[in-house]
Formats: sequence, structure tokens, C-alpha cells
Amino acid sequence: MKDQRVSEAVIRRLPRYYRQLELLIKNGVERISSSELAEQMGLNPSQVRQDLNCFGGFGQQGYGYATKKLYQEISDILGLKREYSMVIAGAGNIGSALCNYEGFTQRGFVVKALFDNDQAKIGSEVNGIAIRDVSEMKQFVKDNNIDIGVICTRRSSAQQLADDMVEAGIGAIWNFVPIDINVCVPLENAQLIDSAFVLSFKLDRQD
Amino acid sequence: MKDQRVSEAVIRRLPRYYRQLELLIKNGVERISSSELAEQMGLNPSQVRQDLNCFGGFGQQGYGYATKKLYQEISDILGLKREYSMVIAGAGNIGSALCNYEGFTQRGFVVKALFDNDQAKIGSEVNGIAIRDVSEMKQFVKDNNIDIGVICTRRSSAQQLADDMVEAGIGAIWNFVPIDINVCVPLENAQLIDSAFVLSFKLDRQD
Repeated sequence: MKDQRVSEAVIRRLPRYYRQLELLIKNGVERISSSELAEQMGLNPSQVRQDLNCFGGFGQQGYGYATKKLYQEISDILGLKREYSMVIAGAGNIGSALCNYEGFTQRGFVVKALFDNDQAKIGSEVNGIAIRDVSEMKQFVKDNNIDIGVICTRRSSAQQLADDMVEAGIGAIWNFVPIDINVCVPLENAQLIDSAFVLSFKLDRQD
Repeated sequence: MKDQRVSEAVIRRLPRYYRQLELLIKNGVERISSSELAEQMGLNPSQVRQDLNCFGGFGQQGYGYATKKLYQEISDILGLKREYSMVIAGAGNIGSALCNYEGFTQRGFVVKALFDNDQAKIGSEVNGIAIRDVSEMKQFVKDNNIDIGVICTRRSSAQQLADDMVEAGIGAIWNFVPIDINVCVPLENAQLIDSAFVLSFKLDRQD
């Protein structure tokens, strides 16, 4: 399983399967066919079968997928058996909102600290999480074996802070700053303005 | 130009070109070769040439790209000649952070109103923007010819609010709620938890 190559497109659909199955279970649905699941998710049935086959094919001919079993399997594939620790660099607007976002803790993504260089912020708390001096960040990441480093700073310091996190042994970087950063660990980009630009592109061409 | 089909992958790289060129201009760089630009962005040179060719090929053999000209062209392609109006449904944590995000206004994405159903919030302001009763949303979208509707509500009301916006004539939907919504206008998904899941997937497989 760990050796298998999975395409980026499939990886990006997995969270959607996970969320959809969660919803089905919540609504008391015990099994579902690939075509029903596909329709609900706006995918085509053969794609759903192909995607889930990548991970061993849990469906049964004529029965479909047992929702709870498939949910559990996808949860395992997504690595959700354990908690992931996060630190957030930048206790501004977006960093604070992420720290307040209940969805993370509920899913096992636990923010351990916020870091900032603003003396007025250092020492205060967001959602019960201390804001620490950014100069302590590397040591904190090292000491606490942090999994995910979230970058929500100004553009000018984003790359340096990502480098510091990687040097301290962070597992992955999640970048909210509208600048391309280069790191040798898994990187997830969440540049808000890029999504806005994609929308303006599409809106402009519709006119 | 308007008739030309552009792949989703190219569209998603355009904001990155735009940001990179902006940075180059800020740093006084007047021209750049496709290979330099590619290296800075972690792409390959033939991909850069191909991407930019999609839009008419602005480079000159032996000279490269004039940064300001290319920046202006991409800005036009992205539809950034005009402003886009936005409303945000859900004045919670994420909705408020988006309303506070300076990057939007700077780029011409202007939040016109926030909507919520919490009587305690209605009437107050975030970043100078009034929080209004969600029951007024449809009329507001209609009257103000709003371009982009941002969904930051609970999961249970996300689809209904998106439907209301579309009925009121909204141009596009930007969804931050971790649920798949179906609309007949351009949709941009920004489900934070999905990015977290992609990271946990990658971290788990590295172990």
C-alpha cells in the first residue's frame, strides 16, 4: 500500500469521498452503489470505481459499497488514525481564523502554538493557544515534533520561516501567503487570491 | 480570445505567473527568459512557453518576455481590468477573516456585505462592512448586481444559500464549507479540511 503510486488527482478526490460517506452515514445510509455515489458527487461512475480500486476495491458486485467500511478504509488511507500537530506562523487575520477553526481539532489536526514577531501580540492567546515569539519557533518545532507548519505571515518572511520549519524537522508546509515557496517536504498551497483570480477569469469570459 | 478553450491546469497557473511577474517588476527586472521564469516557479521552460502561447505568445526570440507587458497581458486575461463585488454568507470565524483580508480589496475584489442569521451579530460591522440579516441576501445580491458569493456558513445551510445567490443572479460561488455544493455558475472550492487531509495522506505515507 505504502509503495503504490497514487495520482495527485485521485488524492485530491479522497477527502471528498470521505466527507460524502460521512454525510451518508449520518443520514443512516448503509450501502451505496458507485453510480449513486458518483451522481451525488458530480463524478462519473467509472471514475468512482477506478478511484476506489486504486486502494483495493472495496465494493461488491450487486451490493455496492458498505458506507461504514468504505469510510473507515478511506479514513485509514488518509492517515486519520492518528493526530497531527500544527504550528501557525503569523497570528494575523488568517492565522487567527485558522486557530479558531473548530473543524481542525474535530478531525485530529491540533494547533500547538502560534508564532508572531509583534511584541504586542506575543504572550496573548487565540482560542486558548499561546502566541509565542517567532524566534522560539525552530526550537518549539524540534522539541514538539510538529507535523505541519502553517505559513500566514507577510510575503517577505514566508520563505525564511518555511526554511526554518523544515530545518527543525517539520513534516509538511501549508502556505497561505500569496508567494511561491520552495521546500523539500510536502507542500499544500492555499493562496486565497489565486482562487479569486480564477473566478475573475471565469466571470470575465462569461460576459 | 473569448472563444478559446483553456485547460483548467493552465488557468490555475495564471495567478502564479501574475504574482511572479509582479514580484519581478517590484524588484526592477525588466525582462526575463522563459527558462529563468520557469526555474523561479518550479516549472519547466517548455511548459511556460506553452502556457503563455495559449494567450498569443508574448515572448520574443533572444529577448524573452518584457515583464511589464506580460504582467499587463496576464492581468487582462485574468479579467482584472475591473472590480468584482462580493458578498459573504456567514459572519463567523472564516467569513470575518475574509472580510478583513486586505489582499482582496487591493486586487479589486470588494466585499459589499456580510450576512448572518445570528441576531446578536446583525447590525454590527466587520472591517467597516455591515453584517445584515441573511433574509435580505437575495434582494441585496439582485439590487447590487453582485459578482461573487462566498459561502462560510454551517454545512446544513450551504447549498440553500448558494441556490439563493444563483437565483438572485450571482456570477460565481466560492465555497469554504466542507460540503460539495452543486451550482450552475462557476464554483471555486476552498475547503480547508480537504487540504489538511491531503497533507495527512502525504505525511502518513512518508513514515
